[in-house]
Amino acid sequence: MTKTLSSPVPPGGTIGILGGGQLGRMLALAAARLGLKTQVFCDNPASPAFHVCDGHTLGKFEDLHAVSMFARACDVVTFEFENVPAATAEHLAEVVPVLPGAKALALTQDRLEEKTFVRSLGLQTSPFMAVATPEEAADAFATLGTTGVIKTRRLGYDGKGQAKVTSAANAAAAIRVFHHAPSILEGFVDFAFEASVIAARGADGSFAAYDSPENAHEHHILRRSIVPGRLTAAQNESAKEIARKIGDALGYVGVFAVELFVMKDSSLLVNEIAPRVHNSGHWTLEACAVSQFEQHIRAVGGWPLGDPARHADAVMENIIGEEAANWAEYARRPGALHLYGKAEIRPGRKMGHFTQLSPLTRT
Amino acid sequence: MTKTLSSPVPPGGTIGILGGGQLGRMLALAAARLGLKTQVFCDNPASPAFHVCDGHTLGKFEDLHAVSMFARACDVVTFEFENVPAATAEHLAEVVPVLPGAKALALTQDRLEEKTFVRSLGLQTSPFMAVATPEEAADAFATLGTTGVIKTRRLGYDGKGQAKVTSAANAAAAIRVFHHAPSILEGFVDFAFEASVIAARGADGSFAAYDSPENAHEHHILRRSIVPGRLTAAQNESAKEIARKIGDALGYVGVFAVELFVMKDSSLLVNEIAPRVHNSGHWTLEACAVSQFEQHIRAVGGWPLGDPARHADAVMENIIGEEAANWAEYARRPGALHLYGKAEIRPGRKMGHFTQLSPLTRT
Repeated sequence: MTKTLSSPVPPGGTIGILGGGQLGRMLALAAARLGLKTQVFCDNPASPAFHVCDGHTLGKFEDLHAVSMFARACDVVTFEFENVPAATAEHLAEVVPVLPGAKALALTQDRLEEKTFVRSLGLQTSPFMAVATPEEAADAFATLGTTGVIKTRRLGYDGKGQAKVTSAANAAAAIRVFHHAPSILEGFVDFAFEASVIAARGADGSFAAYDSPENAHEHHILRRSIVPGRLTAAQNESAKEIARKIGDALGYVGVFAVELFVMKDSSLLVNEIAPRVHNSGHWTLEACAVSQFEQHIRAVGGWPLGDPARHADAVMENIIGEEAANWAEYARRPGALHLYGKAEIRPGRKMGHFTQLSPLTRT
Repeated sequence: MTKTLSSPVPPGGTIGILGGGQLGRMLALAAARLGLKTQVFCDNPASPAFHVCDGHTLGKFEDLHAVSMFARACDVVTFEFENVPAATAEHLAEVVPVLPGAKALALTQDRLEEKTFVRSLGLQTSPFMAVATPEEAADAFATLGTTGVIKTRRLGYDGKGQAKVTSAANAAAAIRVFHHAPSILEGFVDFAFEASVIAARGADGSFAAYDSPENAHEHHILRRSIVPGRLTAAQNESAKEIARKIGDALGYVGVFAVELFVMKDSSLLVNEIAPRVHNSGHWTLEACAVSQFEQHIRAVGGWPLGDPARHADAVMENIIGEEAANWAEYARRPGALHLYGKAEIRPGRKMGHFTQLSPLTRT
């Protein structure tokens, strides 16, 4: 019943993208490089991706009729965000191939299932426990024996649906604030720094991973990605192997990111899986022949994966909220400026990014 | 009467592009990176640029009413090809700033005026003479004393409107084939290889030039650009100085290319000026933080010019005619594939290009 792609989408074919934000926009621009058309579906009339695609549909993601009509114009459909409603993904998949598939979506929409899956692959994560009541939260806090963070199992991003907890009492309070939403308590780990790996898997099992950037966050939002960062060559390879295990276990098709904690003993912990292109991979636009966006289009379009080799060093910084008012200042700096075409500046909103490049120092 | 740009076109503003081919398409994609919208005007309903812009107008370039309506939706208008009718450029310039201006267009639309201008700057060209009758052509051939090529003064590109001449008799015959169109006879020069320089000039007189690629042509069509090619560091600098002289003398705003002959005595001759982004600059899409396309958008939009520094070596090859049928083969090669979204493969038609990248060896 679920449609699969029997042959590559040829130049001139159409990729459908659910979600019209900056990731959808950069996916559409990447598809254009390959001579592919794009259709974008989004519920926001001011979607940045609407300006660069061949056609778009303004509709609710829950509107299965609108979604079906959209799908009929596409050879394959993909998405820029992981919170696509499961019913929508299933409905779509009856009309047109949807990649990555429902399995990856379902898994990464639930923090508990995701972490349990990661552990089942023999990979390390932070300590965590499922909690849904104030009592469970207080008990879990006592059991973990460390400060941590309570996160709702579903629909969290950029620090939303999260609360730091430093006592059994505020663990219990957090669950009340979340209206008893099923959550997890995750113990803090004393990492040296954060990193990620952006990888792609093709339908034929082919695999390609970019070098791992070191990432810095501020207020739960990515501030900066640096490649090469402080990861050793061995850690860089380990990160790619972690991604390969995850991609293979999911039978994944497309680009995905694995957020990592690099521990002081040099081991790598898996923090989170994102079943989509990722902010910490934006530097691939300039530092690699094939960016993460094009790589995703290639994977879901049934094309051969591109070469993830890096030909330059890069530092990517997000342009957040009011910083975008300084666009003329960014435009004067040596490097690559990207502005997402968002109509309105809002606090904490990702408005663009800036990548500074320098000749390759090490691979 | 001619409109000028009083302040930079801000993110969210609209750049108008006359011409919807691959150059217009890549200009539109570059504008999108900066958060700018694009409107494209073209007479071809299958224009590749129509698929990636915010809106488009299908119309004749001679239709001044259609052109005016289009211009009203734009903050500034530029073009992807030099043969914009002079009346259109003038009419447009009364409605909206048009960059680069009518002067550069007029000059580069006429080979005789262009070469005369280049010489007036103290720069070298091939030997040439104006010819318009069979008698003049035969005389000119005798005077130059070498084989050469007769080119119509206007509307030539990719070898069209050109004839090689090896005797006074076929010089005379060529002029008859061209229906006595005003032409020039250009003597062949014994160059070592061909090169070009892609440069940009801002309205404030700022200037930025990319490293000069070595170019190889086949059947009058660019086959390959290599950077760094065989130019020495001194020749690379000379090429940039040539471009600066030309840009300053024209009061040019935007990106332009100067095609060069690199002589065996290591001097540089100016072959041709193109008042637009240029095929031999496509490698800047990957090897520089700011591509020639973005550089042009920056210049005509009144933004600061971007850094033309190269962070990688590159070899760019065109994908011509039937070669595009092998897209899956190109997709497997390590490097950057660009397909232009042209609906139909035709012999000699530029369908895409492929850029192979490697770490920077020298600047």
